[in-house]
Formats: sequence, C-alpha cells, structure tokens
Amino acid sequence: MSEDALVIFTPSGKRGRFATGTPVLQAARSLGVDLDSVCGGRGICSKCQITPGYGEFPKHGVTVAEDALSEWNAVEDRYNRIRGLKEGRRLGCQAKIMGDVVIDVPPESQVHKQVIRKSATERDIAMDPATRSFYVEVQEPDMHIPTGDFERLARALKDQWQIDGVTADLSVLRKLQPVLRKGEWKATVVLHRGNHDEAHRILDIFPGFAEEPLCGLAVDLGSTTIAAHLCDLSTGKVLASSGLMNPQIRFGEDLMSRVSYAMMNPGGDVEMTRAVREAIDNLIRAVASEAGIDPERVYEMVIVFNPVMHHLFLGVDPVELGQAPFALATSDSLSLDARDLDLTAMNRNARVYVLPCIAGHVGADAAAVALSEEPDKSKDMVLVVDVGTNAEILLGNEHRVLACSSPTGPAFEGAQISSGQRAAPGAIERVEIDPVTKEPRFRVIGVDLWSDDPGFAGASRATGITGICGSGIIEAVAEMRMAGLVDPSGLIGGPEQTGTPRCEPHGRTHAYVLYDGTAEGGPKIAVTQGDIRAIQLAKSALYAGARLLMDEMGVDHVDRVVLAGAFGAHISPKHAMVLGMIPDVPLDRVFSAGNAAGTGARIALLNRAARDQIEETVHRIHKVETAIEPRFQEHFVNANAIPHAVDPFPELAKIVQLPEVSFNTGGSGGAEGGRRRRRG
Amino acid sequence: MSEDALVIFTPSGKRGRFATGTPVLQAARSLGVDLDSVCGGRGICSKCQITPGYGEFPKHGVTVAEDALSEWNAVEDRYNRIRGLKEGRRLGCQAKIMGDVVIDVPPESQVHKQVIRKSATERDIAMDPATRSFYVEVQEPDMHIPTGDFERLARALKDQWQIDGVTADLSVLRKLQPVLRKGEWKATVVLHRGNHDEAHRILDIFPGFAEEPLCGLAVDLGSTTIAAHLCDLSTGKVLASSGLMNPQIRFGEDLMSRVSYAMMNPGGDVEMTRAVREAIDNLIRAVASEAGIDPERVYEMVIVFNPVMHHLFLGVDPVELGQAPFALATSDSLSLDARDLDLTAMNRNARVYVLPCIAGHVGADAAAVALSEEPDKSKDMVLVVDVGTNAEILLGNEHRVLACSSPTGPAFEGAQISSGQRAAPGAIERVEIDPVTKEPRFRVIGVDLWSDDPGFAGASRATGITGICGSGIIEAVAEMRMAGLVDPSGLIGGPEQTGTPRCEPHGRTHAYVLYDGTAEGGPKIAVTQGDIRAIQLAKSALYAGARLLMDEMGVDHVDRVVLAGAFGAHISPKHAMVLGMIPDVPLDRVFSAGNAAGTGARIALLNRAARDQIEETVHRIHKVETAIEPRFQEHFVNANAIPHAVDPFPELAKIVQLPEVSFNTGGSGGAEGGRRRRRG
Repeated sequence: MSEDALVIFTPSGKRGRFATGTPVLQAARSLGVDLDSVCGGRGICSKCQITPGYGEFPKHGVTVAEDALSEWNAVEDRYNRIRGLKEGRRLGCQAKIMGDVVIDVPPESQVHKQVIRKSATERDIAMDPATRSFYVEVQEPDMHIPTGDFERLARALKDQWQIDGVTADLSVLRKLQPVLRKGEWKATVVLHRGNHDEAHRILDIFPGFAEEPLCGLAVDLGSTTIAAHLCDLSTGKVLASSGLMNPQIRFGEDLMSRVSYAMMNPGGDVEMTRAVREAIDNLIRAVASEAGIDPERVYEMVIVFNPVMHHLFLGVDPVELGQAPFALATSDSLSLDARDLDLTAMNRNARVYVLPCIAGHVGADAAAVALSEEPDKSKDMVLVVDVGTNAEILLGNEHRVLACSSPTGPAFEGAQISSGQRAAPGAIERVEIDPVTKEPRFRVIGVDLWSDDPGFAGASRATGITGICGSGIIEAVAEMRMAGLVDPSGLIGGPEQTGTPRCEPHGRTHAYVLYDGTAEGGPKIAVTQGDIRAIQLAKSALYAGARLLMDEMGVDHVDRVVLAGAFGAHISPKHAMVLGMIPDVPLDRVFSAGNAAGTGARIALLNRAARDQIEETVHRIHKVETAIEPRFQEHFVNANAIPHAVDPFPELAKIVQLPEVSFNTGGSGGAEGGRRRRRG
Repeated sequence: MSEDALVIFTPSGKRGRFATGTPVLQAARSLGVDLDSVCGGRGICSKCQITPGYGEFPKHGVTVAEDALSEWNAVEDRYNRIRGLKEGRRLGCQAKIMGDVVIDVPPESQVHKQVIRKSATERDIAMDPATRSFYVEVQEPDMHIPTGDFERLARALKDQWQIDGVTADLSVLRKLQPVLRKGEWKATVVLHRGNHDEAHRILDIFPGFAEEPLCGLAVDLGSTTIAAHLCDLSTGKVLASSGLMNPQIRFGEDLMSRVSYAMMNPGGDVEMTRAVREAIDNLIRAVASEAGIDPERVYEMVIVFNPVMHHLFLGVDPVELGQAPFALATSDSLSLDARDLDLTAMNRNARVYVLPCIAGHVGADAAAVALSEEPDKSKDMVLVVDVGTNAEILLGNEHRVLACSSPTGPAFEGAQISSGQRAAPGAIERVEIDPVTKEPRFRVIGVDLWSDDPGFAGASRATGITGICGSGIIEAVAEMRMAGLVDPSGLIGGPEQTGTPRCEPHGRTHAYVLYDGTAEGGPKIAVTQGDIRAIQLAKSALYAGARLLMDEMGVDHVDRVVLAGAFGAHISPKHAMVLGMIPDVPLDRVFSAGNAAGTGARIALLNRAARDQIEETVHRIHKVETAIEPRFQEHFVNANAIPHAVDPFPELAKIVQLPEVSFNTGGSGGAEGGRRRRRG
C-alpha cells in the first residue's frame, strides 16, 4: 500500500493510491473523477487533457516531485506536433503515475462540463446530452465465431463503454459493413441513449475517429413565433439561433381560433400540421446554414409548445382541447423519429424529444419554464409568469408547485391594439409622460435616442416611427395612469379633464396622441380607449390567474416574480406593477428570465437527467383550471381596475404615487367602459 | 377455511379452496389455470366458457351438487339468446362458485390452446402470439387530474392486464381520442408485446369490443420461391397459403450469381431489394384476398430466409457474404416496422420479426428448421437436411447441435437438367425401371395413372408429358443404378453394354430415353450423362456436408434423418439412399418434415416464447464452415460414386442389391466422366 503513489484530483478533491505505472485516466475513472475520453484512452481524441501540479501542496499534505508522472511519450509528441498541446498539459491516457501527484482537470476536459449562462439568476447546464459520439474498436469477423458485424459492434460498446442493449436503424445496418472495413474496425458511433426503458439507438457510424461536431436543436414552437437554437452537443455552445413566424397564423391568430378552424374545416388540422412541420424544416435548414453546419449533423431536436401546438405538431386533431374537460391525447414526454414527423432536413435517423405537458391548458412550454426556473427548488414563494398569447403561470416553492394558464390574448404582443405592431425597427418600445405637462417622449426600436433628444428626427429617419409594440403599449398605459390621463377604471380623460389637447376626442371616447407624423405623411400614433380596454382584459386575466394560484396555495403575497417569455425580457417591472399585471412585490424582487421555455428545451437537449427530472416534476405540479373556477371570474373583474379594485399594492405605493382621478361622467365613457367602478 | 368450496380444474388438475361467490374466472386466475378472457371478465367476449361437472368424482374425492355453481344469470341468458352457448357450458366470469365443483376448461377456452398439426412427427404449437387483442375500460378524463387519454389507456392495460410500459405510434395517437369517445371509454387494443427489452406497442385501437380476427403472416423467402401462410392470430388456423416465384431470379438463378450481380452493378442490390419487397407486398395482398381478409387486419409478419436473401430483404448489400470470412451485417433476430421495409400492404403499424441467422452461410431459414424440428431436444442423433438450391444441414441431439450449409446447386430442383423442369403438371415425378427388360414406367404430376396403365395416354393428354422434375430425376438416376444402366462411377452404359436400345449414343456419351414423344410432336425425355454428373455434384455436396458434421460430432452413423424443404416431402427415401444423398440409416428412420422452415416461421408467429427459444438455441448451435474445411473436399470426391466410393451402406444393402457393373472402357466416357474410380 505504501508503495503506491497518492493521487489527488482537483477541483473535485478526490484522492486515492495507485500502483506506479497506472495511467492518470485509469486512476480518474476508478475514483469517479469526471475526466472525459471519447477514444477510450487510445491517445486519439485528446479529450482527457490534464494539468499536473508540481512542488509543495500543504493543503493536500503532499510534495510533488518533477518525475511524479512518466516522461512525455511518443503519442503526446505526435499530438503536440500536429495539434499543439497547451503549456503544462498532458494527455491523461498517456501520462502514468510514478509518484505522489496533484492533478487538475481543466473544465474543458470534464465530461459533465458546465455551460455557463450569462445571467446570474440562471443556473448552469451540466453537459450530458442524450446523443453523443463513442469511439470503438470492433473485433474483426471470424468464420468460426459467426456473429454479425452489428453484434460485434454492440459488444464493443458494451465492453469499451458499458453501454448495453443498442439497436440500429436499417440505414445504419446498410452502411455498417463498408464503414467498419474502411475504418479498419475502428469507428465512431453516434448513439442516442434512451431514457427509461427506451433502447439506445445507433443513429450513425463513421470510419475511424470522427471529430465533426454533433448538433442538436432546441425549439420553442409558439402560437405566433417559432424559435430554434442550434447547439453543439459536445460543448453545449449555441452555434446559431433563428426564428420565424408560425405559418399557422393564417388559420387563426390565437389558439382557439385554430381549434375552431380544425372543427369547422374537415382536414383543417392536417393542413395546419403540414404547415408547421414545413416551417420547422425550413427553420432547421436556415439555422444550420447560418452556423455553417451540414444539417445531416443534426441528430436530435427537443421541442416545447403549448398543448394546441403540441397536438398540431404531432398530427393530432386539437378539437378536444377546445372543450371541457380539455383532455390531451397524450400528456407524458415523447421520444420520436424525426422522419415520422415528416421532418427531413435533419439526419434521417434524428430523434425528437417532446417535453411532457402539465395539463390540457398548460403545455410542454410551461414544463420547460419549470425546468429552467425550477420553482420546485425555490426556498421562497416564487411566481413565474410566461407572458405570451396565453400566459402560463407557475407558483410555488420546494414544497408545492401550482400551475395554470390564462387567456391573456395577443394585446401584450402589440396585436389588437389600434397602432400596435410587432417588436421591430420603428416600433415605440419605451414611453415616458411628464406628469405636469402631460407631454410624452419615447424611444423606437433601432434608435438609441429618446424622441426629445436632439438629432432624433435624423436618427429615426431610417426606421421611421411606425407603431407601438407590446412593451411600448404597457409603458404607455402605465405612464398615462401615472400622469393622471387615465383613471383607475381605465377611462381616458377628455382634454378639459386632463388639461392637454393630446387627449383628443375619438368617437364617443378619447385617445391620447403619442406621436403625430401626419404632416410628414407618417402615421398618427395614439392610445385609444379600446387599446386601454384590451390591455385591461389581458392584464386582468394574467393577474386573476396568479391570484387564483395564490388562493389555492393559501398565500396573500409572493416573495419573488419571474417574468419569462421573449416579451418578459422587455417589460419594465415598475410599469407592470402600475398596471397591476403582477402581484405587489418589491421591485427588486421582479426578475426577467428571458425565453425560459427555450432555455428549458436547451437544458433537456444537453442533459439527459433533466428529462427524468422534468418528467418527475410535472407529475408533482398541481394544475388549477381557470376556465371552470368561479373565483377566477371574480378575480378577473376585480383586476380590471388599474392597478386593482380591491387588492392593496403597498410596495408599489412606496415608489409611485398614483393620482386619484375619475373621468366617469356617467355618460360618455359608459358605452365601452361603463363597468361599475369599485372603490380602489 | 372449511367454509370455502373446493374447486378442481381439468385437464390441468389444479385445485384450490375459494370463498363461495367467487367467479370461476377469478378462481382460475388465482390458481394459474389457463382460462382465456379478452374482455377481462365482463361477460362480453365469451372466451372464458367452462363446463362444470356434476355428481361423483372419486378420482378427485369430491361430490358436486347441482347447485355447486350460481344460477344462470342475465348476462349468460343474453349471450345464449344472441350467440348460443353450447349445452352444458357456462361463462366462467359469470358463474360463481357456491360449493365443491369440478370444472373442465375446453381446449377452445385455453389461452395457450394448441394448434394440432397433422403429421404425427410434428409437434403442436402453443398459442401465445406476440400480437393480440386486449379489451379495456378506460377512465374518463378529469379536468382535475389532467392526464392524457393515452396515459389513461396505458393505465387501464396495466391495471386490467398487468401490461406495463406501452408505446403507440403517432397514427394511433391520432385516432385515440375519437375511438375512445365513440366506444364510450371501452376499447379493444391491438398490442404487439415485444420480446426482451423491446417496448410493447399499441398497433391499433377500436371502439368497444372488436371481434374481427387479427392476422399474421409466416413467410419463407427462398432463393427460388416465396411462400406465405396467413394465420388467424387467435386460433392459429392457417386461413390461406400462397406462393410465387422470387422475382430476383432475373438477376441470377442462384445466390452467388445474385451476389455477383450486386458486386458488378452499382445499385444492383437496391434493385433486388425493391423487387423482393414488392413481390412480398403482392403476395400479402393475394393471400389476404384469398382468405377474404382486409389486409389492414394483418398486423405481423415473421420471415425466414438464407443469409443472402436476409441481406437483400433488409436492404443490406450482400457482397460480404460472397467472400471469406462471410461476415453477416447482423446475425441476431430483428423486430422491425413493416413500413421501414416499404411493405405497405399490411396495416401501417405492422411489425416484422426476422429470425436470427446461424452464420454467414446458414440463415434464418435454418434457424426456423431448428425451431420446427428441434434437433436440440432429440434424444437420438438426428440429421436434418433442408434440401434446396443450398442445403442447410443440422446434426445433433440434446447435448450438441452442429450446422453447415452446402452448395448443392439447383439440380435437385430440376434445373441444369437437360429435360428438367419445375414440379408442375406434366412433369415426370416418379420413375421405375424393370431390372430385366430395362423398360421404364413413370408418373406425371396431375395424372393418377402410371405410364403403362391402360388409359394413361388419354389421362395425360391435358397435361402432356413435358419434362422431369427434381424428385423425378432422383428416382430416374437411382432406378438406372439399380437396373444396371449406370455404374458406380456414374457412367451410363451403351446399348451393347446394357442390352437396351434406350441407352442411345449422345455425343461421346450415352443417354437413357425415358419417353419419346417426337412421333406425336412431343419432346424426347432422356437422362443424359450430363444430368447424371449434375446430380452427382449435388448429392456429393449434400453428403459431404453431412459427413463433415458427423466427423465434427465424432460419430460414424446417425439414428434418424429428417428431410425438410418443400422438395424433401417428395423424395423417396429408398432412392435418396441408393444415390447416396444421405448417410445410411434404416429406411423407416427417414422422415419428411415438409416445409420445416415455413413451419418454424409459423411457430414464431404464434408463440412468443418460441422466439426466445430459437434465439437462445441459435447461440448454442456450432457452425461448421464447409468452404474452408479441407476434409469437405475429400468427402465430396468420395461421395461422387453412387452410392459412395468408401462408406459402406449396410442398411441399404439389406433391401437393395446393386448390380456390380462398370462401363469405363478407358476411353469413351472419359471426356466428361473420367474421374478415376475408387473401389466401392
């Protein structure tokens, strides 16, 4: 025992004694140290690079001599000559332990290396993708032991990688014999390791040691937009991202109108299925081309969506989702062949993993948000809101998580707004209104200046000032409320009531003019009474959903709010709170998670265990159905006021003093806005 | 305990005590008695019919009172009224145990009922097909427990049938919701239960209790012919059988010429793959139409073939099978989707099971023969020969089984014979030659009379006398040897040597005229010296293969010979022995197994356990490679003589005295037949 050398690995701190002459890689494996190797220790792949430390290590109680590792050998020489080895690095499979030594495993040599995500609030992803490469050396055929080439390949995976029970598609069987012979019985296998009882599938095979990257796609298929991220499956790096409009929009803007289309038009669901699959195929080609990657190298896709998109993508008629009890055709995760989904842009054997749905109204996108934001691991009570055409809402902590969806409609995305438009250059995205002069200033996408900055007119000439996007309308309405142009019931005051000619008559109501470009042949951009109503409906639905979950949870406040969705990233927390979109919390407890659904898809793409995790979590999330809950209606009505008719907003009150105005003259605003005002 | 009633089931003899009121079906299940039920005890399927016995049963020590079972109930009344219940029968799920009783389970109520096969030498098949129907009652969706319809269906299969871990194709998911609602949450599921780790797959689903039969196909894909048997998967009955020529014949008559075609013509393998898959698709349509079955009801196919056909069917280039070491692309069994094989005639979710291959020259057909004939369970030493264009040979007993293949060529099938033809009406199939007059008589296929019977000319007018088939040429050559027209070296004597003008000159050799129809414009059918040589080559290859296995086994005789293959059924054992095709055994120890490969496929179709069994057996069969074994050549040369140059045939000598003749004059026969004669 004392003859053996002491080996200490950092950063793991794992240590053990090994006979001199033991390769570092072997020592690492026997201690369970996370040291990568694709070639299985044959000095080919260079994934097992390590950095030995020499000298005194009082912390570890060890002194490392200059000859603690075997001398640089021919394999390392050759590797260094051809590819170059970083100063101080050795190949773990070649360097042998000759004395006590401290060995550092650099991050890039760890199998389960972390993909560092930019935002501090986001967790890192440990790399362990379902699809990865394995280099094997296969026994040559022997007439006297007449097993097939495939069976000997399977044996090699078992002996060299402890992977048992693999299958292969006929297309792989077809290329197997020439590939093994070309590679002289050495090959790189692209293997998809199934979860649960699912077989491990050989998706592809290449002669010798193949270094080309394997790629996977994380797709967030929304009602309005489809976003795809192409990832390198060994580094986790996002190679390219792209998005396009969901072509199903031509069948209906929102989900229920698409369900109606399917109900009214025989074959309508098939038409929508074809449209969205074609769009995804095109997106795959686009994103691969952007990254300069052969789409044949894309072996896996993880996709998330709401239940209606889930059904339409799978080719299942969504009609049951349009009526109680909102039964899903299938709710658990799915692992499918891309070609069964008519996706032809990727490798023909590519696999598709579909995250589980939570319920008939809370889809795989909500599950992906849960995977990304992990409310089930939160110590404090967190409310996660994924804002889109439907809002998915999660509330909970490590003890219990609730979920619901709420039909906010497309107003938050700038749709159904008189001057609304998608977030694109020229759209007003930020608004401020002077509470004294009632004059607005704004910023448009694509221009760095405010509209009252000198040079704005010149700077905005290229984009124009074309409309108002989702975050712009939220800021505009909130600013109008703060400036006393809109009262708590949502009524816009007239020019006399507000003291500004910008509140001009608009039919039997009023509209606030943000920008008048008509003199130069441009648009007049105003916030109309109808716009306010649309935003009120949307924010009431959102708030009522959150409130319903709080009731069910038995809490009257939350500790933290996370706004998810591409749109969530652009919402100003203060304005959201003024509108009463979200429950009252200290402003610094409102976080943006960006496209959390897309991030969840990416996590599931890069980490197999995350699939087990979310499948298990989804079964523990308790679904609350807003559509049949009588209290939802009550919460919805109360939430119509800005910020709210009943609930106090003490945290908001600390930072904003909302003017007490009322423009209800019992007549003019009544036609549209005459819902009886409650005391706020 | 003594309050409980004693229940004895026959024929199993299983017995147990049960509380009064226990349904018979439940008692049967708890004792593990094989009593069928598709509807799970709901009085729908009537599969659980039983016959109670009343009165004294001294053998069982029990007296059964008239009221030992509950009274006939409304469900049984209704069933009897609508369908009729056989006298004395009860429904096992309805009849309750009220006192001691003896209950007989009739064969048709057993799940694992036996399909009785006609021949006494053949074993019966226990019914347990991989694909069968299950009736389930599915929980209705509940908004508050938002699982998908599929997950509740899976749950029903688990709760009601103890079947866990099912998957379903997208096409099943697509029809799931309407079917469950139409059947009011009752449905019949067509389930394919995978072997090993393979998932159980829902292939189809029907509303309510569906009674239409499920069908499966057993296919024997030979080099020359393709045979298919359509079976009812619940009764095991063969509903229709059909066969057609393998269209690959146009690419080459024998296997090696097809391998050459693939090597010489790029894409040639793809062409052959397409041809054979199309042929099988056509055969499926034909056989289903013959049985009056919708091909959509065909959910499974089991297929066997030699290795070259195996590769070409799977779409794998067979080039490696044409050269040492004869490596198979894959040797283990395969479970595939029919649609991945471009088979479209069956149900779109139909499964295809491919039996394992034994080696590069010994295919899944040989495995099927082993499954059917079970040499591995034989007490005595049995030689199983599957005679075709290649002969597959198995030798062994319960301790050890050896296998080889031997390239006999097509002579045994009537090809490469001067007047040869396939076995069809008009072909000479039986031959006798009078040893004194040297005059022949024969029978042709399609005519019941011998050629010397009065009325033969009239009877054979419809068919004509067109040629000689495989069994005919074997009998002709053996009869010529017995009549002294051919010597042990295979030389045909001249008219002077033999004393008959029928041995007429034919080039530098002689030919024996069996039939001369030239006067009536018909053919002259003769056995030429070339024909004898072709038969000698074929039979030498067959015998040498068998002898090689006997050497390897260390035996100099076998106890029993089984001739398999469609052709084997027509070979006369005596004539086969005179020719020296098979080792010397008592004539009553030679059996015909018919199309044993097809039978093996049918067994695997109807019994899941048989798949495990043959997969396991194949790994224990030891393959002997004839192509590289020097002793094979020696055996081959020695087997050229008729019956043999070296081996004694004592059993043959007991029944036949072969004339000692020699026609080798050192000249005339030498050109073709001059191989030096050894002492016999």
